[in-house]
Amino acid sequence: MNDDLMSAIRWNEDGLVPAIAQDAASGQVLMLAWMNREALAATVAEGRAVYWSRSRQRLWRKGEESGNVQQLKGLRLDCDGDTLLLAVEQVGGIACHTGRAHCFYRLLEDGNWTATEAVRRDPASLYGSAQGDEHE
Amino acid sequence: MNDDLMSAIRWNEDGLVPAIAQDAASGQVLMLAWMNREALAATVAEGRAVYWSRSRQRLWRKGEESGNVQQLKGLRLDCDGDTLLLAVEQVGGIACHTGRAHCFYRLLEDGNWTATEAVRRDPASLYGSAQGDEHE
Repeated sequence: MNDDLMSAIRWNEDGLVPAIAQDAASGQVLMLAWMNREALAATVAEGRAVYWSRSRQRLWRKGEESGNVQQLKGLRLDCDGDTLLLAVEQVGGIACHTGRAHCFYRLLEDGNWTATEAVRRDPASLYGSAQGDEHE
Repeated sequence: MNDDLMSAIRWNEDGLVPAIAQDAASGQVLMLAWMNREALAATVAEGRAVYWSRSRQRLWRKGEESGNVQQLKGLRLDCDGDTLLLAVEQVGGIACHTGRAHCFYRLLEDGNWTATEAVRRDPASLYGSAQGDEHE
């Protein structure tokens, strides 16, 4: 990405912006993660979602361990330039490190956070490491 | 909301979490704003989106000036508890302070951020003040 495109973005004090990944076909919001300049440039160059892992302090190519890559189908910036919205094709149908289709599986219901989505695959089988492909 | 529900949430160092508002009917991601405990409690109690305005440092009842209230249809929390997803009915069909249906109207296209959504209403007619109902 060129400097003009980058300069439209209002990075926070840590040099990051939130990036929402939405399933391009179903419209399901899959997850929210963070990008720095390098992650955004890699996302556009490679055509797949690349985030900045705040916990690991390194680039995180979504699906690098699990194979559940997010192919980039579209990229949008909001009105004040501080949030990105990615339209993606979620390879494997699993965005969440818990093995669920998406990360927003806890629904406020009858005064509780109720888990609403089935685990499609045992997380232990998704990852080689104990830490897994979590989105922080 | 009771303390158990609140304690599932991982607030950031400023006591905030990002909250994604999604149109309950169309699936369109409308905007991202921020909530603190008070905003979340008000959202649930009042059944409408109430955010924390970082620029104004006060609660911001979405639509308080414009009338473009977001009626709460569902509330979800992600796997690691640091992002909220609201399903809303967007009254007036305009979520963005620019007068557009949603805030993510800038699409990366041919190496530019291209404005893709029509302005449905002149922002000047939406707000009494110059600042407007922006989501910061």
